Amino acid sequence: MTEQDNVRTDETVRLVPLGGMGEIGKNMTVWECDDDAIVVDTGLAFPEDEMLGVDIVIPDIEYLISIRDKVSAIVLTHGHEDHIGALPYVMQEMTVPVYGPGLAMGLAKQKLEEVGLRLPMGSKRVRPGDVVTTDRFEVEFFRVNHSIADAMGLAVRTPVGLMVHSGDFKFDHTPIDGQVTDFATLARLGSEGVRCLICDSTNAEKRGYTGSERLVGERLRDIFRAAEARILFTTFASNVPRMQQVIDVSDRYGRKVCIVGRSMENSFEVSLDMGYLDVPDGIMIDTEEMKRYEPHEVTLMITGSQGEPMSALTRMSLEQDRRLNIWPGDTVIIAANPVPGNEKLVYRTVDNLSRLGATVIYGADYGVHVSGHASREELKLLMNLTRPDSAIPIHGEYRHMKAFHDLARSIGQPEDGIFLIDNGEVVEFTRNAAYRTDPIPASGVLVDGLGVGDVGNVVLSDRERLSQDGIIIVVVSIDGDTGTILSGPEILSRGFVYVRESEDLLNEARERVASYLKPAASRGVTDRGKLKKRIRDSLGSYIYERLHRRPMILPIIMDV
Amino acid sequence: MTEQDNVRTDETVRLVPLGGMGEIGKNMTVWECDDDAIVVDTGLAFPEDEMLGVDIVIPDIEYLISIRDKVSAIVLTHGHEDHIGALPYVMQEMTVPVYGPGLAMGLAKQKLEEVGLRLPMGSKRVRPGDVVTTDRFEVEFFRVNHSIADAMGLAVRTPVGLMVHSGDFKFDHTPIDGQVTDFATLARLGSEGVRCLICDSTNAEKRGYTGSERLVGERLRDIFRAAEARILFTTFASNVPRMQQVIDVSDRYGRKVCIVGRSMENSFEVSLDMGYLDVPDGIMIDTEEMKRYEPHEVTLMITGSQGEPMSALTRMSLEQDRRLNIWPGDTVIIAANPVPGNEKLVYRTVDNLSRLGATVIYGADYGVHVSGHASREELKLLMNLTRPDSAIPIHGEYRHMKAFHDLARSIGQPEDGIFLIDNGEVVEFTRNAAYRTDPIPASGVLVDGLGVGDVGNVVLSDRERLSQDGIIIVVVSIDGDTGTILSGPEILSRGFVYVRESEDLLNEARERVASYLKPAASRGVTDRGKLKKRIRDSLGSYIYERLHRRPMILPIIMDV
Repeated sequence: MTEQDNVRTDETVRLVPLGGMGEIGKNMTVWECDDDAIVVDTGLAFPEDEMLGVDIVIPDIEYLISIRDKVSAIVLTHGHEDHIGALPYVMQEMTVPVYGPGLAMGLAKQKLEEVGLRLPMGSKRVRPGDVVTTDRFEVEFFRVNHSIADAMGLAVRTPVGLMVHSGDFKFDHTPIDGQVTDFATLARLGSEGVRCLICDSTNAEKRGYTGSERLVGERLRDIFRAAEARILFTTFASNVPRMQQVIDVSDRYGRKVCIVGRSMENSFEVSLDMGYLDVPDGIMIDTEEMKRYEPHEVTLMITGSQGEPMSALTRMSLEQDRRLNIWPGDTVIIAANPVPGNEKLVYRTVDNLSRLGATVIYGADYGVHVSGHASREELKLLMNLTRPDSAIPIHGEYRHMKAFHDLARSIGQPEDGIFLIDNGEVVEFTRNAAYRTDPIPASGVLVDGLGVGDVGNVVLSDRERLSQDGIIIVVVSIDGDTGTILSGPEILSRGFVYVRESEDLLNEARERVASYLKPAASRGVTDRGKLKKRIRDSLGSYIYERLHRRPMILPIIMDV
Repeated sequence: MTEQDNVRTDETVRLVPLGGMGEIGKNMTVWECDDDAIVVDTGLAFPEDEMLGVDIVIPDIEYLISIRDKVSAIVLTHGHEDHIGALPYVMQEMTVPVYGPGLAMGLAKQKLEEVGLRLPMGSKRVRPGDVVTTDRFEVEFFRVNHSIADAMGLAVRTPVGLMVHSGDFKFDHTPIDGQVTDFATLARLGSEGVRCLICDSTNAEKRGYTGSERLVGERLRDIFRAAEARILFTTFASNVPRMQQVIDVSDRYGRKVCIVGRSMENSFEVSLDMGYLDVPDGIMIDTEEMKRYEPHEVTLMITGSQGEPMSALTRMSLEQDRRLNIWPGDTVIIAANPVPGNEKLVYRTVDNLSRLGATVIYGADYGVHVSGHASREELKLLMNLTRPDSAIPIHGEYRHMKAFHDLARSIGQPEDGIFLIDNGEVVEFTRNAAYRTDPIPASGVLVDGLGVGDVGNVVLSDRERLSQDGIIIVVVSIDGDTGTILSGPEILSRGFVYVRESEDLLNEARERVASYLKPAASRGVTDRGKLKKRIRDSLGSYIYERLHRRPMILPIIMDV
C-alpha cells in the first residue's frame, strides 16, 4: 500500500462474514478491496443437537472459492478449533500463505499433516508487532489474553482506513506468561482513528470483569495442599497456560504429572516443542511409571472436561478404561464450564465419579475455571480505548451480539455506528460511509465422516424421524405381469418395538397389508406408487391407533 | 396405631425407594410395615437425551404391584409432575385412596380424567396439621414453601419411631401466600425425636440461602414500570405464586392479562377454581379481546419457559403461530432457569426473540427467577431443627446427594447416620437400628406413545444408530429352489446420503452386491443367514471406506 493508493476516493473495503456471526463457532471473515482479499480465521463449529450424525460444521466457502484468485493471505488470530479447524477444507481449494501466532501455526500444521497437506510456501509465524502486507491490506498483530497461549488481535490498515479485529480476548492483568493485552497499542490505534472495531461479544451479557487466569492457580494451590491421594485434572486441551499452572503446582507439592488422552498429549507436545511450556526436568511420567508412585505423588492431566463420551475421564468414570480406574479418595478437578449442550454429559460424569468415591470439584462456581472472554466492563474499556466509528460484534449468539449492541449504545455509540449482522451479511466501507450491501450465501456445511455437504435437510429430517420411532419395512414380490403375490408381504422393523414382545402387533400388521394387497392384485392394480401409498397410509394409521407412534414406513414392491 | 403396637419390638419399617434417588424426577417411595404399606408420591421423569423417541419415564412398579394388597394409602406432597405424573399408571394397577394438598389433588384429578380414571373412594384433600392414619402409619402433613402453591412435608409416625419427609422445600420468610414453612412443627418434631429425615437435596451444592419468591416480584415491578409495549411472561405453568405476582403487578400498572398455551391455561383454571389465585375482576382477557388494547396495556402469560418446541413462546419466536407475533419493542420475561439438557433450546428461543426485536430478560442472573429448593444453609437449618438419627438425601442427582452427605457430615452427622441410596436400595428400620437390606429392581420404565415398557435397550440402540448414519436396505428376490436372482438387488436408503447427489455411490454399491450374489447363486449358496452376513459385511466396509460412516444395513432376501 502506498501513499498514492490512499488518494483514490472510490475505493471500497468489503467485510464478508462467512462464520462467527450469531454463533460461537466457525469464525471466518473475508476482507476484500479491489483485486486483493484476505481471510481472517478458518474455524469449524460443533453440530447442533438436531444435526444428527454430523461430526462438524464448516463455513460455506463457495464465495471464497469464487474469488480465490485474489486471496493473498489467511490470517489466524489463535489456535482454537473454532478459528483454525476448517483450514484443511480451505487448503484443499486454494494455496494461500497462512500467517498466525506460533501456537496456532503449530496446531494448524499438525492438523494439515493429518490429511496429507502442509502449510503453503510463504506461510509464517508472526509475533506481536509484526506486520503482514498484501496489495491492499497491512495487518499488524498485537497481543491479547485468551484461554490459549499466544492469542492476538489485528489492526488492519486499508485504503479506507484502519480496522481493528479484537480476536477472542480478555484483559488479564496477571496472565501466566506475563504478556498482558497490549493497552498501549490499543490506545495508539484509538488515537490514529479506528473506522471499525470487530469485537468478541461472547461474554457481553456477563457483568463486571472476567477473572484472571491466576485466580485458578490460587485455587489449585489450596486443592493440591489439601489432597491426600491422586489428583486428576481436566480442562480444554488447548488451555496451555492452565496446563502450566498444573505443572507448577504439582512441582511445588511433590507430584509427578502424567498426561492421558490424545488431544491433551498433542497439545502438550506442540506447546513444549514451541516453547510455550516450562516443564521442570523429570516431572513428566507415563502411565507405566505412575505405578511406582504413591497416590499423593501423582497428578493426571486428562481429557474429558466436556464429558465427551470417548474421552479418558468419561471412560474412567464408566469403568471402561482397562488401564486406569478411579480410586476412592481421588480428587477430580474439572477446570471448565460445560459448553451449552454439554451440561448433561458433564453432570453425568460428575455423578459417576462421585459414585466411585472421588471428590469432584468442577466449574467456575468452585473457582477452578475462569472464562477466556471479556466481560461487560472490559468490552466498554476496549470501546473507549479504540473509539471506533462503527462496531461489529462477532463470536456470539445473537443474544450476545444484542447485549453488545446495548452496551455500546450505553457508552454513547450511535445506533448507526453498530452493525448487527448475520453470516453472509456484507458490510461495505468507503472513505466516508459504512453500509450493508447485498448478502451472499453463508450457511454452514455439514461434515459427516468423509462426506462434506452430502447431508442436508432431507437426510437430517429422515434421521430425526428414524430416531424417534424407528422404521417398518414392508416387502412383497409380485408377478410383474399378473400382479399376483409371489412372496410376502414380509414386515421388518428396526428401532420400533421390541419384536419378540410385539409379535401379535406385527402379525396383525402383516395381515392388514396382505388383506389389502390380495384384492388389489386381483383387481389388477398395477400402479406401484398407489399401492405403496395405500400400504403406508393404512399401516400408518393402524400403528398410530395402537401405539400413538409414527415410525417411517417403507413399502418395497419387487416385480419378478 | 395404638399403645399396644408400640410395645412389640420385632417390628420393622422398610423404606423402598422406587424413584427420586440419584435423579430429579419420578419421585416415589414405598413405606412398609407388617401388612401395611403407604406410597409417598407417584412422579414421572422426562427422558434422558439418549432415550430417543421416549416421551416420559415412570417408576418400575412391579414391586408395588407385588404387595398391592397391603397398600392402604397414596400420599402426595405437592402437584409437580415429578411427584404426581405417574399416578394414572399406578391407578391402572390398584385402587387405593389418595391424600394430598388441594392443588396436587386438583391436578391429579385432571390428569386421571384425561385417561378416563377418577380418584378412588376415600381420597381426600388434606390441610397442614391433618393426619392420615392407616394400620401402621400416621402421616401428619405440614406446610413447606416450594415453587408451587400448597406444598407439604410429612411427619410419619411408625411403630419404630418418627420419620420426617421434607418434600420439595425451601425456607421462604416472605412467601406470596403468607404461608411460611412450619418452623414450629419442625422444632416440635425435633424434640419428639426423629429416626430419619428424608431430605430434598436438589440444591445441596448451592451456597447460602435460596432467595424469596418475593424478590422476583420486586424485579418484576421494575421491569413493568419501565416497559413501554407488551410484556410476555413465561414460567413453569405450575408456579402459581409467580402467576399471582404477575397478575398483581399487571393490575398495578394497568395491564390486562391474557393466558396463552394449554398447560398454563389448565394450571390457571385449577388454581382459580380451588382458590389458590386472587384475580381482580375484569383483568383477564382472551386473545381476541387483546386487540382492543394498546401494547402497554397487555401482559401475555405464556408457555415456553424451557424452549419447548411446541410451546406458544417458541412458536412465536419462530413466527410459526398464525395468531400471535412478536412485535419489536416487546419485553419477554423468561422467569425460569433451563433444566439441564434444555439450555440450547432456551438460548435459541432467546436468540430468535432478540432477532425479532424483543428485549429478553431471562433466568436467575437477571433476577426474574429463584429456585424452589433449599440451599446449603437452609439444609443445615432443617437438619438442626429436626436433629435426625439418620438422614437420606433424595430428589437429587448423585452429586447433589453426595454434597448433602458432605454437608451433613460437616454439621456433625455421623457417617453411619447418612444413607446414600439408589433407586431400589431398601433401608430397614427397627427400634434400635437402621441398615441396608436386599435391593429390589427399580429402574425406570420407558413410555413411548401408548406403549409402556415395550421400548428397551435394543430398540434404543437401533434408534441411536439410525439417527447417526441412517439405514441402507438391500432387497433381492431369489428362486427358492435354484438360487437364481429373479429381481434386484435393489438398494434403498433413508437418512444416509442425499440420494440424487450420491447416485454413483449407490450404483456402485448395488453392483458390488450383485457381483457377489451372482456367483454365490451359481455356487448354490442357499444359507440365507450367510448370504445376508456377507452382504452386510462387504457393503459395510465399502461404505466405511468411501464415507467413514456406519449406516445400519438390512439385507432382505425374498424366496419366490
